Amino acid sequence: MVVSIFVNPTQFNQQSDFSRYPRRLARDAILCRKAGADLVVAPSARAMYPPGFSTWVEERNFSMPLCGRSRPGHFRGVCTVVAKLFNLVPPAVAIFGQKDAQQALVIRRMTRDLNIPTRIVIARTLREKDGLAMSSRNERLSPSARRRAVVIARSLHAARKAFRDGIRNARRLKQIARRRLLATPGLRLDYLELVDLASLRPVSSVRAGDMLVVAGWLGGVRLIDNVILR
Amino acid sequence: MVVSIFVNPTQFNQQSDFSRYPRRLARDAILCRKAGADLVVAPSARAMYPPGFSTWVEERNFSMPLCGRSRPGHFRGVCTVVAKLFNLVPPAVAIFGQKDAQQALVIRRMTRDLNIPTRIVIARTLREKDGLAMSSRNERLSPSARRRAVVIARSLHAARKAFRDGIRNARRLKQIARRRLLATPGLRLDYLELVDLASLRPVSSVRAGDMLVVAGWLGGVRLIDNVILR
Repeated sequence: MVVSIFVNPTQFNQQSDFSRYPRRLARDAILCRKAGADLVVAPSARAMYPPGFSTWVEERNFSMPLCGRSRPGHFRGVCTVVAKLFNLVPPAVAIFGQKDAQQALVIRRMTRDLNIPTRIVIARTLREKDGLAMSSRNERLSPSARRRAVVIARSLHAARKAFRDGIRNARRLKQIARRRLLATPGLRLDYLELVDLASLRPVSSVRAGDMLVVAGWLGGVRLIDNVILR
Repeated sequence: MVVSIFVNPTQFNQQSDFSRYPRRLARDAILCRKAGADLVVAPSARAMYPPGFSTWVEERNFSMPLCGRSRPGHFRGVCTVVAKLFNLVPPAVAIFGQKDAQQALVIRRMTRDLNIPTRIVIARTLREKDGLAMSSRNERLSPSARRRAVVIARSLHAARKAFRDGIRNARRLKQIARRRLLATPGLRLDYLELVDLASLRPVSSVRAGDMLVVAGWLGGVRLIDNVILR
């Protein structure tokens, strides 16, 4: 049975983020049915966090750098709600997108550590025609910001091209991406980092399989993306 | 199927406590078989906490007062290992002793909060002939300390008798128990408290169903006990 789950993992920790999160359950349920879902699970925040709720699940390694530094408590909320959903459903396989690579790694670690018998599959990032990584947040971009948002994917792809051309120095590769990002009006960079996939820690000399990750704000919307260099 | 689980919940957090914890698996396994166990689960610490393990489960309400104040991190270790075991086995019903009432309430809250489909049953405290609450730790008491340890249960029972005789003032009831405890050579009181079972918070006027809880050190061994006043 294919089950689609709708829940904003940040809902409990980042109330302001949650309130701005696009929710179009009826439309999304139709998309799920078309994609082969037999069942949609979409519990309310009140059902998930009743009065007296007081338990948290926290991963303390993969969750620390990158988005973990910029968004305190975010991955604690993610781990808690995902552990709950895994116990509720419970799924044999759960699919997470590579765009949220850190989230997927945090969840995979948490799932293994807590002996939850769900296999975590990381699916390749789906992109709009211009390359922007698909995300429900993209709907919140103004038309102008939406046009500029393409720089995020393009900056990553420029660095990836340089890697393929033989550049292995992390500082130089990041500089290639950063130059494009900083030239984009209104884009506020949160982080741009080249990391080892096994630890999410920065590398100075890049090897195939390392990941270039970026997060930034554009017109009030936080966007993230990444590419694995090969 | 009846499954017995052997694991010291404190093993990861309180290494010194763990190393002193009595482990007699062969003997205990025989006791389990006599009690009707079909299977004994006794994973090693290495299997439970492999290198890279980095996830914690924390209950932040019931775990805060009483033993939570005296043993930082203890209930985090308890919740983490119990969540792991519940996912590993997984049991329909799990039984915890009333002697460790706070632990049982923390685990019940954690289990509900994380949507783990295990029912938590709290079983009455089993006692030695002289009234001492049964605990594997009792084996660590010297013969002299073992004789004196009976004061813990007796002090609780004296307060319970006073409650039955009509005393409702928490300070007076605690004084009755404290007098006996403080008169015992070598006993170092950690806490003595009258709490509401729904919150584990102290009460000043006692009602039926409130719990008198005590923790203390005797000859290097930490002992706890409780009675529910009715």
